[in-house]
Parts: sequence; structure tokens; C-alpha cells
Amino acid sequence: MPAGFTAAALAERFALELIGDGGLVVSGVATLAHATAGQLSFLSNPRYRGQLADSQAGVVVMRAADAEDYAGTALLAADPYVAFARIAALFDPPPPLEPGIHASAVVHASASVDPGAQVDAFCSIGARSRIAAGAVIGPGCVIGDDCVVGEGSRLVARVTLVRRVRLGKRVLIHPGAVLGADGFGLAMDAGHWIKVPQQGGVLVGDDCEIGANTTIDRGAIEDTVLGDDVRLDNQIQIGHNVRIGAHTAMAGCAAVAGSATIGSYCLVGGAAGILGHLEVCDRVMITAMSLVTSSIREPGEYSSGTPLMPNREWRRNAARFRQLDTLARRVNAQDKPARDKED
Amino acid sequence: MPAGFTAAALAERFALELIGDGGLVVSGVATLAHATAGQLSFLSNPRYRGQLADSQAGVVVMRAADAEDYAGTALLAADPYVAFARIAALFDPPPPLEPGIHASAVVHASASVDPGAQVDAFCSIGARSRIAAGAVIGPGCVIGDDCVVGEGSRLVARVTLVRRVRLGKRVLIHPGAVLGADGFGLAMDAGHWIKVPQQGGVLVGDDCEIGANTTIDRGAIEDTVLGDDVRLDNQIQIGHNVRIGAHTAMAGCAAVAGSATIGSYCLVGGAAGILGHLEVCDRVMITAMSLVTSSIREPGEYSSGTPLMPNREWRRNAARFRQLDTLARRVNAQDKPARDKED
Amino acid sequence: MPAGFTAAALAERFALELIGDGGLVVSGVATLAHATAGQLSFLSNPRYRGQLADSQAGVVVMRAADAEDYAGTALLAADPYVAFARIAALFDPPPPLEPGIHASAVVHASASVDPGAQVDAFCSIGARSRIAAGAVIGPGCVIGDDCVVGEGSRLVARVTLVRRVRLGKRVLIHPGAVLGADGFGLAMDAGHWIKVPQQGGVLVGDDCEIGANTTIDRGAIEDTVLGDDVRLDNQIQIGHNVRIGAHTAMAGCAAVAGSATIGSYCLVGGAAGILGHLEVCDRVMITAMSLVTSSIREPGEYSSGTPLMPNREWRRNAARFRQLDTLARRVNAQDKPARDKED
Repeated sequence: MPAGFTAAALAERFALELIGDGGLVVSGVATLAHATAGQLSFLSNPRYRGQLADSQAGVVVMRAADAEDYAGTALLAADPYVAFARIAALFDPPPPLEPGIHASAVVHASASVDPGAQVDAFCSIGARSRIAAGAVIGPGCVIGDDCVVGEGSRLVARVTLVRRVRLGKRVLIHPGAVLGADGFGLAMDAGHWIKVPQQGGVLVGDDCEIGANTTIDRGAIEDTVLGDDVRLDNQIQIGHNVRIGAHTAMAGCAAVAGSATIGSYCLVGGAAGILGHLEVCDRVMITAMSLVTSSIREPGEYSSGTPLMPNREWRRNAARFRQLDTLARRVNAQDKPARDKED
Repeated sequence: MPAGFTAAALAERFALELIGDGGLVVSGVATLAHATAGQLSFLSNPRYRGQLADSQAGVVVMRAADAEDYAGTALLAADPYVAFARIAALFDPPPPLEPGIHASAVVHASASVDPGAQVDAFCSIGARSRIAAGAVIGPGCVIGDDCVVGEGSRLVARVTLVRRVRLGKRVLIHPGAVLGADGFGLAMDAGHWIKVPQQGGVLVGDDCEIGANTTIDRGAIEDTVLGDDVRLDNQIQIGHNVRIGAHTAMAGCAAVAGSATIGSYCLVGGAAGILGHLEVCDRVMITAMSLVTSSIREPGEYSSGTPLMPNREWRRNAARFRQLDTLARRVNAQDKPARDKED
Repeated sequence: MPAGFTAAALAERFALELIGDGGLVVSGVATLAHATAGQLSFLSNPRYRGQLADSQAGVVVMRAADAEDYAGTALLAADPYVAFARIAALFDPPPPLEPGIHASAVVHASASVDPGAQVDAFCSIGARSRIAAGAVIGPGCVIGDDCVVGEGSRLVARVTLVRRVRLGKRVLIHPGAVLGADGFGLAMDAGHWIKVPQQGGVLVGDDCEIGANTTIDRGAIEDTVLGDDVRLDNQIQIGHNVRIGAHTAMAGCAAVAGSATIGSYCLVGGAAGILGHLEVCDRVMITAMSLVTSSIREPGEYSSGTPLMPNREWRRNAARFRQLDTLARRVNAQDKPARDKED
């Protein structure tokens, strides 16, 4: 970790306007509430604005509008969160690459590992798979046959690429994720299930991030596809043949059923679900725990569900939901004589 | 992969009616939209019927009714998806068995591994566990004490059988699945939780399939039981003491709480939930993200939840859900004078 | 496993009142329905009361009120489930500790493993991490840099502690759990996501239990914190910066988004969700699959969702939910003339 940066150096490096003491040195980042004089913090979410006055932070990144009454040292940014993210990265460099294959790793004779790649302990790499330069395969990963890990991609630990998974460049995959498992393809035949072969693969674009214990099945015939810069949180389930457009992000526990097509720049909330064989256009936002049951053709924000209530109230209202159609018919019937009278 | 099959050979092998050119050779399968002249495709879901006319597929499996106007070569099947699944399997043979125990595997002295079983790198097999002939234990699996893996079962990679897990024959388990972890049994004692011992096991019937990162806890006293031919997708959670009947299938992220009993031939949709200590009879279908809160005694399809809407509309309607009981009472009150007048 | 205990010995050991034959020896536990004469069972849930008369159990733990008509041998307890849990533990001792580091494990030179700790096969332990006495690191675990595993904690198998994860004493973690992965911190910059560094850690109190395939992300700046005696079931997702108070328990598939603060002695039902940046006070109970969308400041039970119905009925009612606001407005309008007339 570096010794520190002056406020002036940070201002210059990230093209931010400086107010206050440019010679102030910061050696780390912290929240407004807990920062010390040697740390940098940020104000982006208005709900934390009240913490600014009492903050001990040496330097605070904020919008110009928030700095008007501020007596301390500040770096002004149109988007303080973006500026903070860039500055914070200076204090959190990735672990240095240690190229080479750990003695315990098992690499198939037909696989190719670039001399500039790092393969850690207890990894297994299958037939015809290729690991590019700058890639890191952390401890305990299993890479099956016919996979590709692109330049600078990092599988943190215990990631599985089952078969025919091709990752672009700078893809980051967290522990426990499983890409390329069989899609869930079944056909009922005379009272028994028969398995439908899953002959496709998974294609992941550049700069994607895939969370811990997330699963992405390989396609039945063609590939399951993630565009560039797709960001998936933990415990997400992506069924076979799904296609996700570039820059789409999904929060934890979201699930997309087979053969759904999702556009670019979509935001899918936590534990939201998208049924199979649907299309969701670009720039759609689905709120948490909502269920998408038909295609969405207009950008915008969509929701389902009911509000949270004390259980006693909820029971009364939920019981009425059972009668909602009857209730609506009765209101209609009441309206009718009223309208008849008006005639 | 085999060089190819003639349409006539496929017709004979799978007892399908052939129309068109029986000498046509196919060497793989593809979707209607992307198939080439050397590939076989299928038409089952009517939504893809429009793709038939333009398809370049050499051979298409379809129902007789769909073939009436079709000029190409077709194989006619009562269930084209089943027929396709069988044909496609010809082009996707399982990896050949490589019997033997990898040098890196750690096998307890009291465990028994059949000479016809395959145990891959970095596997650990515990006391008194038995691996039958034809079973494959893929890389990185952990098999604890007192487990049984039946003939021809395959643990793809990084599967954990914690303790007392007995698998039938031809069971397929995908990476990251954990069977036999402690059930979630707690009792509150003087302000602290105490753990209730989990002394049962997990019993899995023949021909089951268990998806990636799915978890099945072992029973508290007796076993958690999956009947034959149960099919579980990814990221499913099955609590302790659950019993699932034969041929039941569950889609991704479904969850079944402890001590629920589910019948045979049920279909549980994605992210659906079933509360504990309930009974669900045979041939029940639960739609996606529905929650089963009491026993179901009649076959049929069941649902809960609300439809997806633009968020602005949803907010208005959801706010009214809070008042639903009041609303219903007012409608009742309005009806009363009307009925009084009728008297 | 011990040979057995007399009813009198159990009564004395756990300070329970004995009725019947104190010399009766039990050598295991079972359910009322399946217990034999040499086994002990319990009656706690009234739904199983009908099984008491026919039970073959040698000894039954029950409340005094339930024992009035009971002719067999019983141990009377204020909380039979707690008493049963303590007795059952006698028959399910934990596997004996086998201190030492397996030859295949890879331990960083700067890590410290207490001689009284057990590190199993295929484990990897990173820089500066410390494993305390009595801790068990089961097969296939990955422990990254700067982690601490406290005294007597047990990582069953294939657990990952990514970075800066500190576990208290007697913490139990089931297979597939991932603690300390990057929080999901993103900022949109000129059409691309940039990653917000995640510099915090995860702090887990004493006596916590963490289920199979559960994920707990490390904090963005400060730590993600679990208080003492927190109990998490399988497949739970805890976002970065979340704080969970002591003795709170969550059922399978629950999810808590980033920066939420949850009190002590809360019970979160299966697949329930809690949005980010909220506060939930002590002693709140959330029912299964409910979504918490704003802070909760009063103890009590809370719910959202709609009841399960046959799909045909559900469709009719759900369609009306789309019109609920309109319906309410019409009822209001109908009320108005009625009220006008009353004036």
C-alpha cells in the first residue's frame, strides 16, 4: 500500500477541483462517520449529508453544491461516488500476479496455460482448455474441457467452469460460482424424465463480474451469452440459452429462466425473477423480488408484489385478496343501478 | 463424435415415420433458426413454427400435423421434443469412464472404491463410504463418512456429500451441490440458541439429477428422502426431513422447508417456496415464486403473487392493498342497504 | 457412541422430573412414530400428540400437562425440545479432533496454525492468517489473506474465507459457504461500470452457525458484522456492510442487501428479503418470502405477499389487482352520494 497522496496530487490525477489545503496527505479511505484526519471520505447519498459537519476526514469528495458551506478540504466531482471509487482503488491494489503453475495443479496434456498466467494450488484444467496471459486461476478451481479464460481474467478461488465456457478479458469470478453446468432440459416420456443433451456453451464478454455461488448453465444447443460489462451479484441463477445485453447488472439472488433475452443497461433487483422464453428490452429496471411473466417492450421501472405490513393487518388484507374478483364484480353491480338511475 | 447418421437410420432406430430423403446425412443438431443442411432440428413449441419455412435444417423432427405443408425431410413423432432428446444424445456421448483413483485423492482406509469407479484429483473420501462400479467422482469432491454412491452415478466436480448420504444408481450431481449438511435445527434456551443434533441422513433414489449449488440437508432423526427420478435444478434448498415423491421436478431457486412432504409427479416453479410440515399431494404444479403456506390435497395448478406492472401503477395499487379489508367492509356496508331495500 | 443411559441418569443429568421406570436404558433417539423400546423420543409440537399413545418409545420427553394420561416412562420438561436437544447430543458427539496439518495442505509462510488445530487435505491458507487451537479446517477449504479462525471453530469442508474474515469462537460453517467476497459495489461512469474497491472485512461473533452455500460479502469500507450466536441457514445472501445483531436467526434463501442493520433476536423467514440501507429493530419476525422495503421500528411480526390459490382463481384475482386503485376510487365515489344523503 502506498504511503499516501496529497489532496493536490489526487485533484490533478483525477481532474477534480480542489478547495482547501492541497498539501494535506491521505493514506486511506473511510466513511464520513469514522474517517480520521489522514483519510479521505466522500458524500454522495444525501442521507449521509448530516454527517459532513462532524466528520474528521482530512479530505472529502463531494458535489460542488454540497461544498458551499464546507470549511474543510474537498475534491469536487460531478459524481462523487465514481471519483471516490477511482481514488479508493489506489489504496486497494490487486494482489500481484505470480505467474506459474502450482506444483499440485493437474493440467491436461492438451490444455495450454500461458507462461504469464497464474494457476494456484489444487486446480484442475481439462482437455483443450486455454488460459491466457495475466489470468489468475485461484486455489481449488476446476476448469473442464474446451474452456477459455481470457487475458487478465481472475477466478478468485473454487470457481468451476464445467465445459465449453469461454471468458473474455478482465472477467472477475468469485468463489463458488459454477459456469457451464448442464441446462435443466427434461422431457417426460412414458412417466419418466429423459434428459435433453446440453450441447451449447457459455460465452462471457469482457469486463464481466460474476458473484459468489452464482450459476450460469450452458446452452442446450447454442450458447448462453453475457455481453460485455455484465455485472452479476451473488447467488444468481441464469438458465440455459439466456442472453444478457452489455452493461446489465443484477443484484443478489435474481434468477432468469431458460431462453429469456434481456437487453442492455437493465437493472434487475435482488431476488427478482424472469420467466423463460421472454424478451426484456434495453434499460428496464425490475424492483426487488418482482416476477416478470411476460415480455417487456418499453424501458422503465417495473414491479410486482405487495407492501409489508404487521402480520395481523396483512392476514386481513390477504384474505380479501382471495375475494378480489368477487369484490370487483359487486362494485360493478352497485355501479350499474346507479348508472341506470342516471339514465 | 460419430461421423453422422442418415435420416433413414434415425427413423428406424427411434421408430419414427420418415418423409422425404432417407439418405440425407446429419452430423449434429441445431435450432431451426441456425441449422445447416447437415444438421437435424426439431419443432415442438408452436411459437417457433414460423421458423420452419426458412430453416436450412437437413432433417426436422415434428408432429405429423406440422408436416402437412413441409417440403423437406422430416421425422414424425408424437412428442418431437422426446424424439429430439434421444437423437441429440447420439451426438453428445458422456465422457468415457476412466476407472481408477487419482494419485492426489485421499481415501480413508475403511472406505471402499470399486475398481470400476473413477475418482478424480483432489477428492477426499471418508470412513466407511462406498463408491460403486461405474461411478465417477469428479475433481474436488468431498465425500464424508458413511456415504454410498451407487452404480453409474456421476458427481461432476466439487460436490460435497457431508455425512450419511446414500445415492441410488445413475444419480447425476452438478458442481457445488451440498448433500447431507446439518439440518437447521435450533431451540432457544435462556436467550441463547442451542443446536439440535441432526442424526439422520439423505437418501436419494435412482435416476435423480441435482443441480449446481443445490443444498439438501440431512434429517434430524430420520432421513431426508428423494424418490426415484426426482429432478432438481440449480440453487434449490431442501430442508431436513423433507420427502419428495418420484418423478417430481423443481426449477431453479425453489425452496422446501423442513419436514414438508411432496408427492410424485409434482412440478415446482422457479423460486417457489413450500413451508415446513406441510403435505403436497401428487401431480401438483406450483407456479414460479409462489409460496405454499398450507397443505395441498387436490392435484392441480396453484399460484400466489401479483402481476408485474410499471412501477408507478404498481405503487398506486399496492398502496390500496393495505386498505383491502377496509375496502371490502365498505362494499359490504353499501350492499346491505341495497339488500335491505330489496326485502 | 455410548452404550446407553438410564432414564434416571438422564433425569439427574438434565434436572428433569422422571415418571415411570428409572432403570429403563435408552441407547438412541427417534421420532414418536418410529422409536423402539430402547430409544428416547419427545413430544413438543401438539400436532404430533396423537402419536403418543401408539409410540413404542422407551422414554418420552414431554411437558407435565401432556403426561397426565401417559402410562409409560417420561421425562418432564418445561421445554421438551430443548431437553431433547441436550439429550440427543449425547448420542451424536462431534468427530474427534485430529490436530495437525495434512501433508497436502498449502500454508503460507506467514500464516500461523496452532498445533492444536486440524487442517485437512487440499486446504490452502493465505498470508498472515491465523488458525486457533481446537479449530477444524475441513477438506478443500480456501482461507485467503488476513483471516482469523477462532478457538473451536469448525469449517466443515469446502468453505472459502476470501480476505479479512475474522471468526469468533465455536463458529460452525457448512460446505460451500463463501465469506469475504467482494461486496457488489459499482458506479456507472460514462456508460461503463467501474468497480468500487471493497476494503472492509467480515467480523463473525462467537457461536454463530453459517449454512451451506451461504454468502457473506466483506464491507466496502468498514466490516460486515454478525453478532454472537447468529444462526444462518443455507443459501442466504448477506450484502456488504450489513450488521446483524446477536441471536438473530434466518431461514434458508433469505437475502439482506447492503448496509442494512438488523437487530438482535430477530427471526427472518425463508426466502425473505431485506432491502439495503434499512434498519430493523430487535425482536422482529419476518414471515417467509416477505420483502422489507422500509425500516421497522417496532418489534412484532411482519408479512407481505398474497395467499396461494388454484391458478384459475388466482388469475381472476390477480387481474383485479391491476385495477385496485381504480376500484377503491369507485367505492369512494359510491360512498360519497350515500354520505351526502345522510347529511
